[in-house]
Amino acid sequence: MTSTHSLGIVETQYVTFAAGEPFALESGAALGPVTLAYETYGELNADRSNAILILHALSGGAHAAGYHAGNEGLEGWWNDCIGPGKAFDTDRFFVICSNVIGSCYGSTGPASIDPATGKPYGLSFPVVTIGDMVRVQERLIEHLGIERLLAVVGGSMGGMQALEWAAHHPERLVSCIPLATTARHSPMLIAFSEVGRQAIYADPAWNGGDYYGQAQKPDAGLAVARMVGHITYLSEASMHEKFGRRLHERERFGFEFATEFQIESYLKYNGDKFTRRFDANSYLYITKAMDYFDLTEPHGSLAAAFAKSTALRYLVVSFTSDWLYPSYHSKELVRALTAAGADVTYLDIQSTWGHDAFLLEVDTMTRLLGSFLDRLVREEGVRGPEGGEERSEVRGQRSEVGGQGRQSIDHGQLPTGRCPSPAVPGVSSASSRQSASSSYSPRTCTPKRGAWAARACSVAASSQTSSRAPTSTASPSRA
Amino acid sequence: MTSTHSLGIVETQYVTFAAGEPFALESGAALGPVTLAYETYGELNADRSNAILILHALSGGAHAAGYHAGNEGLEGWWNDCIGPGKAFDTDRFFVICSNVIGSCYGSTGPASIDPATGKPYGLSFPVVTIGDMVRVQERLIEHLGIERLLAVVGGSMGGMQALEWAAHHPERLVSCIPLATTARHSPMLIAFSEVGRQAIYADPAWNGGDYYGQAQKPDAGLAVARMVGHITYLSEASMHEKFGRRLHERERFGFEFATEFQIESYLKYNGDKFTRRFDANSYLYITKAMDYFDLTEPHGSLAAAFAKSTALRYLVVSFTSDWLYPSYHSKELVRALTAAGADVTYLDIQSTWGHDAFLLEVDTMTRLLGSFLDRLVREEGVRGPEGGEERSEVRGQRSEVGGQGRQSIDHGQLPTGRCPSPAVPGVSSASSRQSASSSYSPRTCTPKRGAWAARACSVAASSQTSSRAPTSTASPSRA
Repeated sequence: MTSTHSLGIVETQYVTFAAGEPFALESGAALGPVTLAYETYGELNADRSNAILILHALSGGAHAAGYHAGNEGLEGWWNDCIGPGKAFDTDRFFVICSNVIGSCYGSTGPASIDPATGKPYGLSFPVVTIGDMVRVQERLIEHLGIERLLAVVGGSMGGMQALEWAAHHPERLVSCIPLATTARHSPMLIAFSEVGRQAIYADPAWNGGDYYGQAQKPDAGLAVARMVGHITYLSEASMHEKFGRRLHERERFGFEFATEFQIESYLKYNGDKFTRRFDANSYLYITKAMDYFDLTEPHGSLAAAFAKSTALRYLVVSFTSDWLYPSYHSKELVRALTAAGADVTYLDIQSTWGHDAFLLEVDTMTRLLGSFLDRLVREEGVRGPEGGEERSEVRGQRSEVGGQGRQSIDHGQLPTGRCPSPAVPGVSSASSRQSASSSYSPRTCTPKRGAWAARACSVAASSQTSSRAPTSTASPSRA
Repeated sequence: MTSTHSLGIVETQYVTFAAGEPFALESGAALGPVTLAYETYGELNADRSNAILILHALSGGAHAAGYHAGNEGLEGWWNDCIGPGKAFDTDRFFVICSNVIGSCYGSTGPASIDPATGKPYGLSFPVVTIGDMVRVQERLIEHLGIERLLAVVGGSMGGMQALEWAAHHPERLVSCIPLATTARHSPMLIAFSEVGRQAIYADPAWNGGDYYGQAQKPDAGLAVARMVGHITYLSEASMHEKFGRRLHERERFGFEFATEFQIESYLKYNGDKFTRRFDANSYLYITKAMDYFDLTEPHGSLAAAFAKSTALRYLVVSFTSDWLYPSYHSKELVRALTAAGADVTYLDIQSTWGHDAFLLEVDTMTRLLGSFLDRLVREEGVRGPEGGEERSEVRGQRSEVGGQGRQSIDHGQLPTGRCPSPAVPGVSSASSRQSASSSYSPRTCTPKRGAWAARACSVAASSQTSSRAPTSTASPSRA
């Protein structure tokens, strides 16, 4: 399914703000100029009411769908859900995926050049918050000429950004879709963040954040941080199913300190791979932003935080086996939103895939998101862009979500073709800085994915499929 | 309560085997001589039927109760449960706590001198298994002149050793008490082990295990490994209660990469402290032994593993919030034991303390263990050692566990004083190598525990106590 309706070649775009007057951060520090990387898919309609903003998780970037010229193997991190006829149907919607400041994927971050010194910022880059990230994204939306987004959507840290948008910029939104996330980073989440940071600090090559241009980067520490992360993205059930106690390329224990179990090989592979695509300082800054995130502050309650955001429609989703952002986070959020008087649809989806479920449960997410967006389209009278092509076959399975049980609206019912197709006002354009990141696929096996994934595929093929396992053939790139 | 019935001064003892003929390990390698560190508390009775063997977890040692001369601040890791009138009542029982090979607490391990080279083994030390550890412990029991142990008891890795004893040396046991443990290390447990090992490998000071006598040890890597471990020993609920999002020695965010949250301070403190008492290579060897542990092999089932162990009585205990060794591990074990026809008492104890509960739920454990041991004493006709003192007050709250609902037997009903008190046949005696390990206490606050614990105490005092929180005042040293 992955490539059936691909967007094909896409380009990362960049826009720079605050070149004159620096951007004021929550910390009190100033930052400027500020560049933000983003991609867009599909076209804006005439009244600019069909824009959806997608927000990524800790290690993601703006490249969410399609592929870049010369790098056809690297589909965007949510390619399964963004494209013609997919959950975020680019025949109907103008989909934007924005990077965050602090990132290493084209936006201003610790690896960027500090104009004051002509050298990379390193640790002199100011600490940023989820609020800062979103306020820069707001500039992007203004820059694109969009007054109001039909939806902001994100999983994990992307969900935090979506909630920050809803709580502090509600006039900009019709709806908010936070997935597998929280409105308040828990002590356990902070603990895992801190262990990852300590692993980086412990690497002598980190050198207090000053390693750009050096022969050695803190790869060893960053790999350990990523390995810890990967454990938390899985569930015990998915680990049993994917790996069990099976050995890696051997028949019996070697009684040595080598990679022996498949789960060890998986962690090592993903830890090492991560160091080829991510910057250790960005890992520090972004986890710090997540740790600071707490929408109960300064009001003292979540309901107060959303008091001015009750006109929005919310689709809140959690997953039963997600122990990193357990369902109770979403339930607390739903209680607060309901108490504030908002229109909320909430689903706690039965899944064995742990936190990764928001990327892996493609069929379920496609039906769910599609139905919710159909409802918005109907209720808001959103029209498609000129020449929007019908692709109703993919959405044939949709069932209605929320909206007082009204019937699902089919794409064919959308009034289309009434407005001129505006040029997407991108600014400078360049190829993405995101490097190759072939994904570990528990379900599919394609030659391009390399030896490790091929092995993993045979593992999956030989393992018994849980009755609760998803039926999708998703191959997520972790975002 | 901690020191009310202390054993006072105790000494670690050491016995050396296989000085002539090396000990054959499961790997096929040979090891000799093999020294094992142990402590004993209380006295053997005339027919040597009152011996209980206590086994420790990953980072524990033989020092389980009382304190060492000159180091009065360091009570043994299970001091709350071992002593006159306590769960393991040293007025009635001869309690042995044995270290394991591979450890750095006095038994032969990677830091020991290899007689073949005159230098520390380092990574040339052979990989050992839980089975190897237990077979060396069997030599200790023989050495102490004990044919049959009234009970083997342990939590976490100690529970694995207890189950190994039961499965492979059942003729040596009357009962087996595995706590918060598993008969088969899961892929998630292997994953956490491996991340800890990778953190150590990543430290340049580790130097392939060859760092003894060097200026730098792999402290940074070992601290990260320990921090990961500490997260897994807690529960989300206990982290919320103990730390929440409270800041450490500051009023507001500093927007810097310093220790800001209390949970960060806790992890950092415990990570650093661990490097002053533990050896990184031992961490590698012991986690490897745990990862290999799987009693379903080579029989293919747990029931088969315990087919010859059905004469034993089992007390299996798990804790509802222990996500490292979740209850299903114990339930699978209980199903297998029951299928094999064994006499099993199983409790899944409601607790918010996560894996640490087996050390923290002192009141519950005291009643539970005391009642189970009472039953064994009665059914086996076990007599106390000469001069055993009655201390029935501590056990006054006991309720009957297992044994078809028979009434609890009080210490006063035990026939005592009928046998001469034998000298405990210890071999060489020296003070323990275990260094100071003041414990982090979520409930109690005593001046001797140092600044951090005092801070933590004030934290606990200001936090709301969950209705499910234990009422104990336990202050565990993590074992």
